[in-house]
Amino acid sequence: MTRQQLFEKIKEKESFLCVGLDTDIKKIPRHLLSSKDPIYEFNKQIIDATHPYAVAYKPNTAFYEAEGAKGWESLQKTLEYIPEDVFTIADAKRADIGNTSSMYARAFFENMNFDSVTVAPYMGSDSVKPFLDFEGKWVILLAATSNPGGLDFQNLTIGNTDEKLYERVIRQSATWGTANNLMYVVGATRPEALADIRKIVPDHFLLIPGVGAQGGDLQKVCEYGMNNQCGLLVNSSRGIIYSDSSADFGKASGVQAQKIQVEMAKILQAL
Amino acid sequence: MTRQQLFEKIKEKESFLCVGLDTDIKKIPRHLLSSKDPIYEFNKQIIDATHPYAVAYKPNTAFYEAEGAKGWESLQKTLEYIPEDVFTIADAKRADIGNTSSMYARAFFENMNFDSVTVAPYMGSDSVKPFLDFEGKWVILLAATSNPGGLDFQNLTIGNTDEKLYERVIRQSATWGTANNLMYVVGATRPEALADIRKIVPDHFLLIPGVGAQGGDLQKVCEYGMNNQCGLLVNSSRGIIYSDSSADFGKASGVQAQKIQVEMAKILQAL
Repeated sequence: MTRQQLFEKIKEKESFLCVGLDTDIKKIPRHLLSSKDPIYEFNKQIIDATHPYAVAYKPNTAFYEAEGAKGWESLQKTLEYIPEDVFTIADAKRADIGNTSSMYARAFFENMNFDSVTVAPYMGSDSVKPFLDFEGKWVILLAATSNPGGLDFQNLTIGNTDEKLYERVIRQSATWGTANNLMYVVGATRPEALADIRKIVPDHFLLIPGVGAQGGDLQKVCEYGMNNQCGLLVNSSRGIIYSDSSADFGKASGVQAQKIQVEMAKILQAL
Repeated sequence: MTRQQLFEKIKEKESFLCVGLDTDIKKIPRHLLSSKDPIYEFNKQIIDATHPYAVAYKPNTAFYEAEGAKGWESLQKTLEYIPEDVFTIADAKRADIGNTSSMYARAFFENMNFDSVTVAPYMGSDSVKPFLDFEGKWVILLAATSNPGGLDFQNLTIGNTDEKLYERVIRQSATWGTANNLMYVVGATRPEALADIRKIVPDHFLLIPGVGAQGGDLQKVCEYGMNNQCGLLVNSSRGIIYSDSSADFGKASGVQAQKIQVEMAKILQAL
């Protein structure tokens, strides 16, 4: 999916919501456990109910790997089930030396047909570029993450300057790709970072986790992070997918997704 | 496996060799492709032949994920096949926010029974600590990696000091665990970094990739990196596992592993 297609989809659905499929077998409704593939069954119902309100889905690979080869199958089936008009993100936070990163790219872009994968920057250029070599695919690079530990290293200042490590990561990596194949992860819990980041990469999309359960504020995120093509994918996981544990959990997740979509529609109209 | 047990094994085998099982289906001998699980078949023969000379095995997860759920099964079977007296490393370079890192820990420590997993430091303390919560298991944290891009961010100096980012990563993370559950990845291509690192963490084991194919030098690594309990696991992947593509590839890998072991035995005798 191109940047232009993504923006068109955002306008059409009046939404820049990404639903995080962090599907933990210990948290899904108990009645699903008797089905053949409970994780896939859960995801299917969540996707059915939230699809009208979401432009992206983001399964986090950790939750699938925790179930071994079976979990990996659930992930593959989930990806095949997601409608084609939706942007898909493998939230995998991978990276390795060049030839090994190529294998990860093969895993997510060829073996599965994800549009994008989240990548960790610590190992530098040759660990990121192999993902950028795939035509029509995206890297979403960790920049300023939403977790408390994100401050441990990312906010350190570099050399004898005011430049923070996450700013350097963005500034340098922006030369490896373009706004058409590179996005950044910026936590909703750090809206002040968003304003700084927009000065460095005015055109790039930003993937924003941390709204809801982690305490981030949608209005603030948009105030500091939006650009004239929206430029944001805001993720919500737990607040949507675990909003109800009855047989009606799907419907309940749709209601939660719609609530966020309605708020987003208002913000987009003011754009 | 405890640090003491690992040192005992090193003395017994006169080796601190780790064999990297970076098993690429495109690189294994062609005659294996007709077997039911070629990756597993390849690994079995490599393990049989190199086991007398190795104290650790390190499958890199990228190579297995590139084959999807089937690859994940090959990884599980490989791990079960590795003899119990050998230290096992899931070279996965994972990390995520706290509850998600716990899922990765579950994947590698519970669903599979790895002794250790490699972890990326960029997301900070709460992304690393969940792995350290597993009794008897190890985190091997990326510090100074062997690839060219390792210099992009890891060597940046912090604040108005001479401290490099990888030194800060080691210094700070060393407070999260101990020499009994935390190791560091330091590339053999950066022996000068080894001397600095030994000043910060004199007792911790270091995992050293990059000897051989990537150009690192074993003698230099030992000169700068060894401590009085060895303190090193030196990895070789391609130089051992792809040394021959005939039906005798296993035997050939054993010969290569033994060559390194003989060199290591001499170094250990001088300890």
